[in-house]
Amino acid sequence: MPIGDPMVSEKLDQVPGILEETGIDAWLLFVRETHTIHDPCLDLVVGTSVTWASAFLLTRQGDRIAVVGSLDRANLEMHGHYRDIVGYVGGISEDLRRLLSRLNPRRIAVNYSLDDVMADGLTHGMFLKLASVLEGTPYASRLEPAERIVAALRGRKSPSEQARIRAACEATEEIFERLTPRLRAGMTEKEVAALIREDMLRMSLEPAWDVEHCPAVFTGPDSAGAHAGPTERRIEPGHVMNVDFGVRKNAYCSDLQRTWYFLRPGETHAPPEVQRGFDTIVQAIRLAAGALRPGRPGGEIDTVARSFITERGYPEYPHALGHQIGRTAHDGAGLLCPRWERYGNLPDLPVEAGQCYTIEPRLPIPGHGIATCEEIYVVTAERAVPLSRPQDRLYVVS
Amino acid sequence: MPIGDPMVSEKLDQVPGILEETGIDAWLLFVRETHTIHDPCLDLVVGTSVTWASAFLLTRQGDRIAVVGSLDRANLEMHGHYRDIVGYVGGISEDLRRLLSRLNPRRIAVNYSLDDVMADGLTHGMFLKLASVLEGTPYASRLEPAERIVAALRGRKSPSEQARIRAACEATEEIFERLTPRLRAGMTEKEVAALIREDMLRMSLEPAWDVEHCPAVFTGPDSAGAHAGPTERRIEPGHVMNVDFGVRKNAYCSDLQRTWYFLRPGETHAPPEVQRGFDTIVQAIRLAAGALRPGRPGGEIDTVARSFITERGYPEYPHALGHQIGRTAHDGAGLLCPRWERYGNLPDLPVEAGQCYTIEPRLPIPGHGIATCEEIYVVTAERAVPLSRPQDRLYVVS
Repeated sequence: MPIGDPMVSEKLDQVPGILEETGIDAWLLFVRETHTIHDPCLDLVVGTSVTWASAFLLTRQGDRIAVVGSLDRANLEMHGHYRDIVGYVGGISEDLRRLLSRLNPRRIAVNYSLDDVMADGLTHGMFLKLASVLEGTPYASRLEPAERIVAALRGRKSPSEQARIRAACEATEEIFERLTPRLRAGMTEKEVAALIREDMLRMSLEPAWDVEHCPAVFTGPDSAGAHAGPTERRIEPGHVMNVDFGVRKNAYCSDLQRTWYFLRPGETHAPPEVQRGFDTIVQAIRLAAGALRPGRPGGEIDTVARSFITERGYPEYPHALGHQIGRTAHDGAGLLCPRWERYGNLPDLPVEAGQCYTIEPRLPIPGHGIATCEEIYVVTAERAVPLSRPQDRLYVVS
Repeated sequence: MPIGDPMVSEKLDQVPGILEETGIDAWLLFVRETHTIHDPCLDLVVGTSVTWASAFLLTRQGDRIAVVGSLDRANLEMHGHYRDIVGYVGGISEDLRRLLSRLNPRRIAVNYSLDDVMADGLTHGMFLKLASVLEGTPYASRLEPAERIVAALRGRKSPSEQARIRAACEATEEIFERLTPRLRAGMTEKEVAALIREDMLRMSLEPAWDVEHCPAVFTGPDSAGAHAGPTERRIEPGHVMNVDFGVRKNAYCSDLQRTWYFLRPGETHAPPEVQRGFDTIVQAIRLAAGALRPGRPGGEIDTVARSFITERGYPEYPHALGHQIGRTAHDGAGLLCPRWERYGNLPDLPVEAGQCYTIEPRLPIPGHGIATCEEIYVVTAERAVPLSRPQDRLYVVS
């Protein structure tokens, strides 16, 4: 029985279609000692490590061919993702040249990119080594960057990847659930963050981004900017508090925001202006999720939520509506963002099936604080389906 | 107070001298999103992570200059290793060009290498980005590989690095000490390995190499080859057993071998042929360590141990006498090895002060098993000093 991760098989199954779309004949990963320098694409289409110089060649016809040092061969066979494995002893050159001559690809993509670190796993030394292996063959001049392949493959989550993001969301929701009954007015933002962090460690989970800002906790009307860490500010009755938090579980991330209200003496529920602000956020998310479908430009989805919020009399949120999520909290190119100069062509990129997006509008409730929710949706062939369990009622702390 | 690791300061202090030796004016690390793709040299001379494209420039005159994104600046300042930090907002190009114009280095080394993965941390995309930043300046054509700098800097261990290797050795020796009273004839190699591994986990240590072969356990005269994992073979009275094991502690490794003898009924100590084999190994290590001094070619040190063993009537060991150790169990270029074809010019490389070598001869004791010890020595200005506590008596199990 192969020991390989089924997720790698699912990603490998996506490759031929993406090569067809991009007009590339073969995608070549060229790596060595992957414990020391690690091409991020190895996690998607190899799923194990190699020591000697190794080539992984994936073609539009569905070939999955590995040329590896003889000592790496048995491990790769056990993983079971590559059916066609050449194990060399002396050096990789001859076998790699023979393989390319047999397949004769016209366009060969390799992992380098000026702009996208995820597509830039080929080192300069290995590029020069590849150039020297291919010297005198027609293939040296057929190399081109694999950026589009990597962006598509990384963006379109396979069923196992979606399940892992969902599991990370569930773990995060569990932590939020245990948090609510322990909250009290008088606690500081730092104390709330510490409760969340302890629970995360107890569950043997890592923070989805740097631990100084994960969780981020903001309470009251005068809280710090969206990228600040928790402070010594104390929660007061009448405050709206929001938390931005995610975990990494089984290599995949969550990134969720939730909102709480702290009752003032004599109150039994939140005042109408707080409830209206919270309801506006929930409704904005529902509307945006309803619009999130393959083929629509990301900018249109942002507009749905942004206009709804401003029509209800609130200022527009000073950021994008949502980003992709996966192996990192901010994952992949396509963004649900407004047509602002700083976003370049990103609002024009079409949403694709399999992509997983956060939806995270925010609005200020004067005198109380900031209302935010952040949910995660996966785009299917027809619509968007939640991977988180959306917050539908304001959490109230007495 | 800076929070930086003093080890990074010690490595930075070594750089100007190494640049002087190699005739290089400036060494440039050019990196981005170092959590995702990590140049191994960052661990030596930066000691923290950055997000935006960043340049770390070290000169022969001792300049330590960083050009980083404005959001990475505060973290770098807190670490305290770089006195001269430029924080850019728009892009790195202008500040980097201005810096090079000011220093005007004639030879600039960057991290790429066809042969040494440790010196190949510059990705091809970042190389192209650097080439485009330097286009139209004289510096584009002054780039060369930093291989010699990296090999020297990595090989010559600073005091803190030596202390960390010593600490990894001490942890390993503790594990060996607790193992001996728990050994019994009848146990399998796998059971011995499991005892060692449990102790390692209890101490929150990682294995120094892949866990399938760390520890390696070999018992009796018919044991598997030196690179095999532990088997179901049972220890019998009269067996010589040897273990090859190391841990990674605080990012630095140990790699030690020890030998045990299992008494037969009626025996109170090992038979003379076993004792003589063990004593030959101990004496070979002492002689080799006595010869290990700066400037001597590694091949000469190997010859000292190899001739002593063959003169005593044993076959020569089928491998090198020793390798460097550090952040990985096999670390750095210089090797104590025979003048065999497969070692190329390695036996001619001179030993340098600060290098840390294993010394690990082996010999078969017919009818009993293999005798080995592996010790670790650091080379000082005049001689070699042990970082492990050398095994000087055969461990005997009744």
